[in-house]
Amino acid sequence: MKLVFSQHDLQESVNIVLKAVPSKTTMPILECILIDASFNEIRFTTNDMELGIETVVTGEVVEKGKIALDAKIFSDIVRKLPNSQVTIETNDRDVATITCEKAKFDIPGKPGDDFAHLPAFDRKDFITISQFSLKEIIRQTIFSIAVNENNKLMTGELFEVRNNILKVVSLDGHRIAIRNLELKDSCPDKKVVVPGKTLNEISKILSGEMDDPVNIYFADNYLLFEFGQTVVLSRLIDGEYFRIDQMLSSDYETKIVINRQEFMSCIDRATLLVRESDKMPVIINISENNMELSIDSAIGSMDENMDIEQTGRDIIIGFNPKFLLDALRVIDDENVSIYFVNAKAPCFIRDDNGHYVYLILPVNINVNAGR
Amino acid sequence: MKLVFSQHDLQESVNIVLKAVPSKTTMPILECILIDASFNEIRFTTNDMELGIETVVTGEVVEKGKIALDAKIFSDIVRKLPNSQVTIETNDRDVATITCEKAKFDIPGKPGDDFAHLPAFDRKDFITISQFSLKEIIRQTIFSIAVNENNKLMTGELFEVRNNILKVVSLDGHRIAIRNLELKDSCPDKKVVVPGKTLNEISKILSGEMDDPVNIYFADNYLLFEFGQTVVLSRLIDGEYFRIDQMLSSDYETKIVINRQEFMSCIDRATLLVRESDKMPVIINISENNMELSIDSAIGSMDENMDIEQTGRDIIIGFNPKFLLDALRVIDDENVSIYFVNAKAPCFIRDDNGHYVYLILPVNINVNAGR
Repeated sequence: MKLVFSQHDLQESVNIVLKAVPSKTTMPILECILIDASFNEIRFTTNDMELGIETVVTGEVVEKGKIALDAKIFSDIVRKLPNSQVTIETNDRDVATITCEKAKFDIPGKPGDDFAHLPAFDRKDFITISQFSLKEIIRQTIFSIAVNENNKLMTGELFEVRNNILKVVSLDGHRIAIRNLELKDSCPDKKVVVPGKTLNEISKILSGEMDDPVNIYFADNYLLFEFGQTVVLSRLIDGEYFRIDQMLSSDYETKIVINRQEFMSCIDRATLLVRESDKMPVIINISENNMELSIDSAIGSMDENMDIEQTGRDIIIGFNPKFLLDALRVIDDENVSIYFVNAKAPCFIRDDNGHYVYLILPVNINVNAGR
Repeated sequence: MKLVFSQHDLQESVNIVLKAVPSKTTMPILECILIDASFNEIRFTTNDMELGIETVVTGEVVEKGKIALDAKIFSDIVRKLPNSQVTIETNDRDVATITCEKAKFDIPGKPGDDFAHLPAFDRKDFITISQFSLKEIIRQTIFSIAVNENNKLMTGELFEVRNNILKVVSLDGHRIAIRNLELKDSCPDKKVVVPGKTLNEISKILSGEMDDPVNIYFADNYLLFEFGQTVVLSRLIDGEYFRIDQMLSSDYETKIVINRQEFMSCIDRATLLVRESDKMPVIINISENNMELSIDSAIGSMDENMDIEQTGRDIIIGFNPKFLLDALRVIDDENVSIYFVNAKAPCFIRDDNGHYVYLILPVNINVNAGR
């Protein structure tokens, strides 16, 4: 095999496929990038068995062939090469010689046939959204998946298509994040759970451009994302996702409208007095168009007042400050509306257009002691 | 005590004194910043017993007094406050109340009298250089102090004033870094060893401006750096520093002139094939105005050729690539001159004006096996 690339194209493609190289594996072949130029096209493939990425690389096939090269070493070399022409040539002992200007590397590879190819995929039902929207919707929900694997479904995100709306949901038992996105084209109703880990990786290789589309294909065990010269295949999580509709209510006793940035800064200051392990709640006291936010910990105490627009009853309620911050951080609106029922029921942060709902469970506080 | 600051001034001063707060200590009072407004001036002091910092803070003394506040909590609070007016007020139980706009913090403090003040200091012999020069000279030498404490003197840097030249030297047994700086004013000859750790911290609070001067005062057990509104006191390391003059020779068998940036990129690429633990040398083969740099490790092999200007004999010599990179990285010249004697003697990287000398010991290689 003999291939010629520009260093720039090579590096770009390597960076894309690197995202599906497992950091730990018992199968050394998975630590490799498959370079396949069996035909007149060069393809790089990686596969960690959860996530698979294949991308077509711009380059010249001087002599056909394929080889699997250790992803870490190969990517390190490519990154450090001068921005010039790079040649990769293999011999019959599967040693790859990489040359660029006056530099020459010899690194041992593995036969390309040893590599676990991506499963064949039937491209039928799909939706098209912009890379920007997909990247955003992941960012706006991914923080509330569960970290530990006790409940596998909680480590993934629901991707549901119904009535030409894509609904993405994540939850961890303490909170729920919901984002809705209207689709331009019609697609049959679908409901799958995608691993959070793979969504994180996909998010990193999306361009984030409004004008770049991504096609998302639905199959029984896989979801396939196709954009630019790249396809990304994600395994799905089996099982029935949680029924969240019954947890969402539009009744409320108190509604407030608050400046998002000010609210975040205020919570930020309060959390200075909380050690990570403490799980100390911030206490919110809403009364007469004023919110008093206070905290009282072993380190010290803090309180701060903010002007708000209040509708309905006064309320005193406690929250894990991190959960409030996580949700507020991914909302773009200048002011947010927050709905409360009582001190033991979840609050809802939601907009009027139904684009987002963030549900957060309160922390039990002794209202009398809570100043 | 009652003091009023702008958040900006307060944060700037806190950031300066933070550098002398120990991360671990058995004396909790040292984890504090002393706020001393016993007179009409506000001073912040910190002291980790090796390094002491005192800075005068811009602010208004409404009521005199002093208090010691936990440095971490206090600095966290200051950093998160809005850029507005900040008031610090203490009560008779040494609780400090920090208010800024609508936010109010109460944190427990300690009596200011508990704090270990900086030792009195006699300001006599001193030199003046620019903050830029001091910051640079530290950066250009600090990397070759020894990391482990087996030989205490190696963990410091020699600051020697002789014939109105400041010479700064660091060495770790494998290499020596020397920088010389001409002084404008005269000062008696001096010779002290300053802990590398304190130099690192000082370097972080220097402005790096050509026009900002720093006075360095010499005393028996201390070195005092005075700049702007700040004084920094560093304890010295006792003992006689190594006699390096006898290690420096101007004889050589081979001299090369090489493009610094190209040489660095080339070494950088070679080190891709070296695992941290391996200590694999790069082999340099100089012959006919060409340098071949090669490495052969368990990961793979690499070689690269570079054009050089050669004077004298051909030579094959091995080096720890990190030592070469460390020295080349802090030289500003486009081309550097490197002098060799033989494959077992140190090489010297030095300029013609005597501003710098970097001595590096080679690694023993079997020349026949070394391709």
